[in-house]
Amino acid sequence: MENICNLDEYAENLAKNAKQATRGLRTLSAECRNAALNLVAQKLREQKSAILAANKQDLDASAGKISDAMMDRLTLNDARIEAMAKGAEEIAAFTDPLGRILEARELKNGIKISRVAVPLGAIFFIYESRPNVTIDGACLCFKSGNAVVLRGGKESLNSSKLLANIFRSALAESGINENAVQLVENPDHALVTKLLQMNNYLDLVIPRGGERLIRAVVDQSKIPVIKHFNGICHVYVDKSADIEKARNILINAKTQRTGVCNAMECVLFDRHLEKSVIADLVKTLQDKGVEFFGNAECISTLPSITDIGDESNYHHEYLALKASVKFVDGVEEACEHIEKNSSGHTEAIVAEDATALDYFAANVDSSSVMLNASTRFADGGEYGLGAEVGISTDKIHARGPMGVESLCTYKWILRGNGQVRG
Amino acid sequence: MENICNLDEYAENLAKNAKQATRGLRTLSAECRNAALNLVAQKLREQKSAILAANKQDLDASAGKISDAMMDRLTLNDARIEAMAKGAEEIAAFTDPLGRILEARELKNGIKISRVAVPLGAIFFIYESRPNVTIDGACLCFKSGNAVVLRGGKESLNSSKLLANIFRSALAESGINENAVQLVENPDHALVTKLLQMNNYLDLVIPRGGERLIRAVVDQSKIPVIKHFNGICHVYVDKSADIEKARNILINAKTQRTGVCNAMECVLFDRHLEKSVIADLVKTLQDKGVEFFGNAECISTLPSITDIGDESNYHHEYLALKASVKFVDGVEEACEHIEKNSSGHTEAIVAEDATALDYFAANVDSSSVMLNASTRFADGGEYGLGAEVGISTDKIHARGPMGVESLCTYKWILRGNGQVRG
Repeated sequence: MENICNLDEYAENLAKNAKQATRGLRTLSAECRNAALNLVAQKLREQKSAILAANKQDLDASAGKISDAMMDRLTLNDARIEAMAKGAEEIAAFTDPLGRILEARELKNGIKISRVAVPLGAIFFIYESRPNVTIDGACLCFKSGNAVVLRGGKESLNSSKLLANIFRSALAESGINENAVQLVENPDHALVTKLLQMNNYLDLVIPRGGERLIRAVVDQSKIPVIKHFNGICHVYVDKSADIEKARNILINAKTQRTGVCNAMECVLFDRHLEKSVIADLVKTLQDKGVEFFGNAECISTLPSITDIGDESNYHHEYLALKASVKFVDGVEEACEHIEKNSSGHTEAIVAEDATALDYFAANVDSSSVMLNASTRFADGGEYGLGAEVGISTDKIHARGPMGVESLCTYKWILRGNGQVRG
Repeated sequence: MENICNLDEYAENLAKNAKQATRGLRTLSAECRNAALNLVAQKLREQKSAILAANKQDLDASAGKISDAMMDRLTLNDARIEAMAKGAEEIAAFTDPLGRILEARELKNGIKISRVAVPLGAIFFIYESRPNVTIDGACLCFKSGNAVVLRGGKESLNSSKLLANIFRSALAESGINENAVQLVENPDHALVTKLLQMNNYLDLVIPRGGERLIRAVVDQSKIPVIKHFNGICHVYVDKSADIEKARNILINAKTQRTGVCNAMECVLFDRHLEKSVIADLVKTLQDKGVEFFGNAECISTLPSITDIGDESNYHHEYLALKASVKFVDGVEEACEHIEKNSSGHTEAIVAEDATALDYFAANVDSSSVMLNASTRFADGGEYGLGAEVGISTDKIHARGPMGVESLCTYKWILRGNGQVRG
């Protein structure tokens, strides 16, 4: 790596190197890309002790300074190194996203037109102090023929440096420009800001992490960003619901994992449901440790719940064993509440009535709509997309869980025989 | 329209109204949308004299103040009003872009998953003083189920106001929220700036016009922008070229229309072509009035051409009977020159050698690549996309000529039977 202290020069070099690497990647065969990914897996296993040693440096430096949860995410061990290696092999085994013919036809003038999937170019991948994401992100970008500039959290710098260098040595040994994968080795935030201005070299930014990090990236970036800020997911229980389905879905959506973006944050009960049925469903969740927050109407029926306060608090992501609750007048009012309060991630309805299901599917404008299924299914792996690049609550380019195909664009190729336009 | 003088309030109302209109549009049937478009066509014909009168106000106010070309674009006449009406009817007749099932399968757990095309939401459409684009833009956005905020050039305000109101009255008579189409009636630029911050209400900005306008929009916008700045299109003539095909393609690409983004701006000749062949092709274009600009090597072979000066001048869009010229060492160097100087719009190769054609198609990273066909084909109509929304040289969301499908996003719908995640 070049001088990493002159920030302007360093940022420009990283971005230029990435752009330059895109040229070779564009025409690299799937066989070459997959063989390199398998070599990464092999090298990860071979260099396990070096990886653990680098990781120990990071852990020692952060001990006592960061939360237990952050320490856990920062930690690599035998199982996690094996998981990275397996992940690289699995991505190698995916169907190739490049070269897919998205449409093809012959124009009246005899020109054969086709629209073909090609790499986006150079991707700037920003993530927290989780060193395994260094390999994960590099694999996904490389599989889809993109160069990547990786910027992990500063606590993971030693681990990530070694992991990125392992990836780069696998590229070099495969005869591939190693700048297809670069790590930002200077933790200065100003460097991120500088890179976010380089829309002449970089094609896409993918930030992963907390809402604050993502908002900062969006505010600063001149490069398109694909992201989700948060997941304020709703489950609506219609009067026609099968109550046992509702119970299972509510338990799963709220309690299976609480810290994830596809967990339920608000349950909406149809006012036409029996009060005793609502009370019973709420008690089931309370017995699992869930605390509920609702408005005056809810409290009058369910005295065990806490006052939510201002109506605007319905727009809240708890990421904990907590949930908002509200009564609504059927599916129309459920959709209105969702329109106002959802973050556009995932909403579910539990109903047996086909009209209610169809109304919900048509009117809810979120990236995923679940009819009689848990919000927790909103995930690239569950959707059969292979490893997940991320989840988008944007409407441009990609929406919902994103697989490697979302790291592709397309070009139009017209094969003629000398045709000119009339 | 509300108070259009308090800019903050006016901008917020426009954006909020648009967002609110998206809710009804989401579920409006294709029949309703198409009937409303046909009613727009009928009303345009019925109100021809009122349109001409409003247009006369605009023309009178601008006479002597703007260029002849601008006056021409500002002018409406019987033929242009009929063309707008026909355009609305043609868009009504298009295949519906909404509700398309982009993929569908059954997961192992029995959930039926599908990815369905839905409207983007609310679009901010910015264009120059061409009143017909008011109808064109409104038709394309409405067809694809989107609400639109239209902002035309100030010289066309009277014409555009009447045209937008004709569209709105057709919506109202069809029982559709007329705020699906709104025109910015206050020409203050500050309003545009304010609207460009409203990414909580507006989903996409499409600016049409000159590079300066588009750069200003991109610099200010917090909303995703789809655009092309310019078209620096290349034609490369390989040593294997059929010379008559090359001649026809060069004439068509450079001289059929010069002021358009898909016109050729630079011709690259393979150094292995006979000098006399190159001189002959150049002369053909010179006889049609084309002036050439080239480097020292070109001038030594072709004394009739002008010195291009600095090498950076190869990155230039003439939009006139002018073109750059350069000699290159075969298809590899042609691709390198294009990589450095193209704007990513459209490039063409003329060659009979299959290896050269394949190399060019694989290595040129532009939105359209023409093999033995004119760059002028890069157009939504020519590609069979129906009316063109615009051309994108971006890589995110849509690339190259865009039809109404590019104004759609998708959502995932999962139909289950009570499934929860394991």
